[in-house]
Amino acid sequence: MKIAILPGDGIGPEIIAQAVKVLNALGEPFELETAPVGGAGYAQHGHPLPEATLALAKAADAVLFGAVGDYRYDNLERALRPEQAILGLRKHLGLFANFRPAVLYPELANASTLKPEVVAGLDILIIRELTGDIYFGQPRGMRSCPDGPFQGQREGYDTMRYAEGEIRRIAHVAFQAAQKRDKRLTSVDKANVLETFQFWRDIMTEVGKDYPDVTLDHMYVDNAAMQLVRAPKKFDVMVTGNMFGDILSDCAAQLTGSIGMLPSASLDANNKGLYEPSHGSAPDIAGKGIANPLATILSAAMLLRFSLNRAEQADRIDAAVKAVLAQGLRTADIYEAGTRRVGTEEMGDAVVKAL
Amino acid sequence: MKIAILPGDGIGPEIIAQAVKVLNALGEPFELETAPVGGAGYAQHGHPLPEATLALAKAADAVLFGAVGDYRYDNLERALRPEQAILGLRKHLGLFANFRPAVLYPELANASTLKPEVVAGLDILIIRELTGDIYFGQPRGMRSCPDGPFQGQREGYDTMRYAEGEIRRIAHVAFQAAQKRDKRLTSVDKANVLETFQFWRDIMTEVGKDYPDVTLDHMYVDNAAMQLVRAPKKFDVMVTGNMFGDILSDCAAQLTGSIGMLPSASLDANNKGLYEPSHGSAPDIAGKGIANPLATILSAAMLLRFSLNRAEQADRIDAAVKAVLAQGLRTADIYEAGTRRVGTEEMGDAVVKAL
Ligand SMILES: CC(C)[C@H](C(=O)O)[C@@H](O)C(=O)O
Ligand SMILES: CC(C)[C@H](C(=O)O)[C@@H](O)C(=O)O
Repeated sequence: MKIAILPGDGIGPEIIAQAVKVLNALGEPFELETAPVGGAGYAQHGHPLPEATLALAKAADAVLFGAVGDYRYDNLERALRPEQAILGLRKHLGLFANFRPAVLYPELANASTLKPEVVAGLDILIIRELTGDIYFGQPRGMRSCPDGPFQGQREGYDTMRYAEGEIRRIAHVAFQAAQKRDKRLTSVDKANVLETFQFWRDIMTEVGKDYPDVTLDHMYVDNAAMQLVRAPKKFDVMVTGNMFGDILSDCAAQLTGSIGMLPSASLDANNKGLYEPSHGSAPDIAGKGIANPLATILSAAMLLRFSLNRAEQADRIDAAVKAVLAQGLRTADIYEAGTRRVGTEEMGDAVVKAL
Repeated sequence: MKIAILPGDGIGPEIIAQAVKVLNALGEPFELETAPVGGAGYAQHGHPLPEATLALAKAADAVLFGAVGDYRYDNLERALRPEQAILGLRKHLGLFANFRPAVLYPELANASTLKPEVVAGLDILIIRELTGDIYFGQPRGMRSCPDGPFQGQREGYDTMRYAEGEIRRIAHVAFQAAQKRDKRLTSVDKANVLETFQFWRDIMTEVGKDYPDVTLDHMYVDNAAMQLVRAPKKFDVMVTGNMFGDILSDCAAQLTGSIGMLPSASLDANNKGLYEPSHGSAPDIAGKGIANPLATILSAAMLLRFSLNRAEQADRIDAAVKAVLAQGLRTADIYEAGTRRVGTEEMGDAVVKAL
């Protein structure tokens, strides 16, 4: 089994190093191969997603991804900026199903900006479609405004779109995920304004007939943003498009106050996937040895569970993370009085020890 | 001076009645004229925005709007559903600048689901562009998917777009609003993915040169959703497009926990405007006499300030609302132990008395 390791930029290399330590400690015959991506890809090969990196990702059984982005690359033209790497990987690998859990560990309830009673025990799974929508829709670009009061002026434009099969496959993923949980699925759309999402709603409803054991409801995206703040525990599984999912999954992650704890998975049709922490590359703290490696370590656990069919090993890692939290170990981002502040490496070592 | 009064559906008529009482109590020679809109428009004239209603809105100096939407009209085809009324009014009246304040009254700090220290004193102004973006962009509809793995399937699609002049005018509105406040403006976009919003960012930066006293920063919409939950008080004025503004302004409103208190204004190029509470028509509590009329009353104050140039009268209303809160009067939505629960009418009467 081959795992592609793409550390990326900022804190990426530090946190990935801890996850690699954990993977190596499992005693499994995994082959890990590392390649540069994002700013590091650009620095070494002139492109955020170098050909060799993409080839490695394609050849591997799964990809463990750190984070990309760094101030140094902010002024490059868009096609060369670090985030193009992650967009390219999603598209080229067909990673259409993004799983973003927002889970609040009981030990970290204070970290949230929300009142404990509102978020204690929070456990939402957001499923975001990841290869369609306005992220990739054509045509897009700059043109002369074709009509109306601004006719003839420069205009930027993009195309939002979802084809039937695209909606169907993410719907099936979402209903099946809901079946394994509390059997409640909220589909988030903007059917009252957008043709794309009226169609989305229609197809979700249709696919829902195949899953009579799951309760489906539909919610407008603006209301969903409100309800996430008002009563997030009412949600079980949410499914939505690429653009709305980008916004809502970050909002939901922040509800926990501990985004340094949240892993994510992006899967193709055969459960091959890319796994990455939900947080970013945090260039401001890169190299200081203080970043929280737990989201990346938990992403490695998801990788084992979803792509390598090693649920037992994944459970071991999840348990080890719970154990270090119970021991009171905290990186700076989740530190509070009465716990012990540790650095990135010390946290990684503690997880290995707890395995 | 003529004010068009459009009560709409659900709690609309009840809350509008209180605002009308307040307007009448000012002793100004305003002419108020009422017309049906939304479901009420459909019920009486077969269309959510009847011609006579639109004509009245156009002829008036300002529009006071209740809320639209009711279960009864949920299954109508989209063009006849109540929310088309508000979209139509925005478009036909050219109301491109939507002001949505998210203000937390000190007396209501407990109503928020966020910790008091995170939201106490919250005072954000979100400025949302309201007549462009993917809400109105053409082409849109259903088509056969033109390429890719889903070629030939049914596909829903929409067009996101912003022309230069459209971005410029909302930019000027936002910078000028920031000048009157803390001189900090956050422009929210998704320039890393969307052509439309790369252009948006470029033009915002350009217009910013005319306002050297205002500090402009740019933030991606996903990050903005996180920062609203993490540290909302860091924001002063935010400006964004129609779609992102729909989501973020509802999220920001919910941070206060008292959306029944939040007014909004939608202005054209000459400060003519439509004023409405930020909350919806709440058909579940319609007719029970328990809805909070304060957001509508505060919307009437905004109407006086922005469109009728009656800042003094607006100040009087704002002060009267503060006074009834200080007296401990609360409708059910903001009630807590130790305060006095009152109904819609009693609250309206109390504001009139406090004037
Ligand atoms: C970096 C960016 C292109 C990306 C996205 O918008 O999808 C990020 O925000 C994410 O959610 O993974
Ligand atoms: C009713 C709907 C069309 C509308 C919108 O999306 O703009 C509403 O959510 C709002 O924010 O006023």
